Amino acid sequence: MSNAHPMVELWRGNLLESNHFGHAVICDAKGIVEAWGDPSTVIFPRSSCKMIQALPLVETGAADAAGLTEAHLALACASHQGEHRHVDMTGRWLESLGLDEADLRCGTHEPYDHAERDRLIKSDTSPCQLHNNCSGKHSGFLTVTRHLNAGPEYVAIDHPLQIAIKAATEEVTGEASPGHGIDGCSAPNFATTVTGLARAMASFAAAKDTGSVRCRAMYRLTRAMATYPELVAGEGRACTELMRAMGGRVAIKTGAEGVFVAILPEQGLGMALKIVDGGGRAAEAAIAALLIRAGVLEANHPATLKRLNAVQTNRRGLETGILQAAPDFP
Amino acid sequence: MSNAHPMVELWRGNLLESNHFGHAVICDAKGIVEAWGDPSTVIFPRSSCKMIQALPLVETGAADAAGLTEAHLALACASHQGEHRHVDMTGRWLESLGLDEADLRCGTHEPYDHAERDRLIKSDTSPCQLHNNCSGKHSGFLTVTRHLNAGPEYVAIDHPLQIAIKAATEEVTGEASPGHGIDGCSAPNFATTVTGLARAMASFAAAKDTGSVRCRAMYRLTRAMATYPELVAGEGRACTELMRAMGGRVAIKTGAEGVFVAILPEQGLGMALKIVDGGGRAAEAAIAALLIRAGVLEANHPATLKRLNAVQTNRRGLETGILQAAPDFP
Repeated sequence: MSNAHPMVELWRGNLLESNHFGHAVICDAKGIVEAWGDPSTVIFPRSSCKMIQALPLVETGAADAAGLTEAHLALACASHQGEHRHVDMTGRWLESLGLDEADLRCGTHEPYDHAERDRLIKSDTSPCQLHNNCSGKHSGFLTVTRHLNAGPEYVAIDHPLQIAIKAATEEVTGEASPGHGIDGCSAPNFATTVTGLARAMASFAAAKDTGSVRCRAMYRLTRAMATYPELVAGEGRACTELMRAMGGRVAIKTGAEGVFVAILPEQGLGMALKIVDGGGRAAEAAIAALLIRAGVLEANHPATLKRLNAVQTNRRGLETGILQAAPDFP
Repeated sequence: MSNAHPMVELWRGNLLESNHFGHAVICDAKGIVEAWGDPSTVIFPRSSCKMIQALPLVETGAADAAGLTEAHLALACASHQGEHRHVDMTGRWLESLGLDEADLRCGTHEPYDHAERDRLIKSDTSPCQLHNNCSGKHSGFLTVTRHLNAGPEYVAIDHPLQIAIKAATEEVTGEASPGHGIDGCSAPNFATTVTGLARAMASFAAAKDTGSVRCRAMYRLTRAMATYPELVAGEGRACTELMRAMGGRVAIKTGAEGVFVAILPEQGLGMALKIVDGGGRAAEAAIAALLIRAGVLEANHPATLKRLNAVQTNRRGLETGILQAAPDFP
């Protein structure tokens, strides 16, 4: 990955301490508008492609048949932090399907949200699968699975749902997937190029509430994410705070190992980036830089300044340095 | 940092997902034995230089005057995880000096150790400065400060202690420091090159329990670290587990932002490495690879396999990939 582009720098005092390289692509409906690094780099989108993984939920009619709201669709695209509201909403969703937490196949981890984490610790309660940051996605998966009357092992690579997701992925990225990996939540994650992922986001950006089933599904999912930023991640998190800062005009989504995507409907643009070392702080800074450049995010908004041109402070609140974009990015 | 060397790769399924570049140097008493990347790269050693920062503690006679044991010296070189034993030992140390937690200048953070963290949460107790991973180092700082009858603001750049640490740093690295930054714990951190840091570690490796005050201090600190690995970090942590795996023959120390050093007395070697993106997982994998190459660490030891050729598993225990050394490293 020596063809990656310098994107983000961490300075301590007046010396460069660490830096991050990456690949980034901006597409419109016609193709690549601008790129940094190698746009043909194959990546795992990880959680950044949850809106693609949610396409069968809408397109099969499962979402409407189950009476899901726009908020449910946002949660289906979420990497939430296990706040009480996320856990509660997911639990009720499963209940409405006649299912429960044990039907999930995402596994368990401690919630990122400290209030919920502390509540569990104080009550000697173990976290459950509802706390998994992917439990909304998996509830969407179960909704489709029940609608299709398919088997319960919905994360198996040959399950009808995953076959549908692979097809949708290849259609919206415009590429055959070169392979898949198993994600943290056990779902298959289909590899694509940075360009493929940006192209997919451009398709979401171009989608209207008319036209094909695919178009309308993309439109609904984009609107759901942008309308319910607090369900897509949670308080304090980059997706939530930056989407709020952009006032519902743009949908963005992070993925593990340094991936970030953005859907800009008004500009008809899709963005995708991958930090080669997997650094989340750099992915957040880099997507903020691209969103500022596109004119949809204020450089001086507090949500921006937590991630880009971010003054670093230590355990006593002393300033130690700054996290900023590399000189020629973007 | 495009001259950095590929060091560590994360694979998911059969595709490369992320990778890490770095600089590494191995020195003996005469100079560079082997290097990867650019050995002249200026870095912040961060916590990897705590044994250098502890030199004045021993050399001034402060440690002996205060009756410190070898265990205290290990804790002075530690980035501990705030286990009860670390907190308790640091508290007693300060008490023995007639000081208390409020005299520390390291600031507060939640302990990394989950047992202690959960104990605090259950008892509605806030963490204190004793929980800071640097509280042992700062207790050492206070021991020197009291011994020298210097002022209480011992992390100020012009405090006699920091002047002594800067001098010791420049002497053992063999270089003038090009500048300093403020560390997470508020202490000055003096920049040096990767070579300078490796040269310093080679000096520690060559030190015997005879000769100059400097030599004997280096010998004592190296022995202390290798003898009390559980005090240098904590259960489950890389420094502790890898030092145990090497049976007390080697001292190693991590530093924030992807730094790792090793002192190999039997081989007379010092090692230093910096992962340019600051990735701790890569620094752990890379130092393990260098220690295996040097013949002091078993490739198949469980402590090694947690960090190098490390099978990655997800929330349900499924294998997702592997973290391994890059093809031509080391």
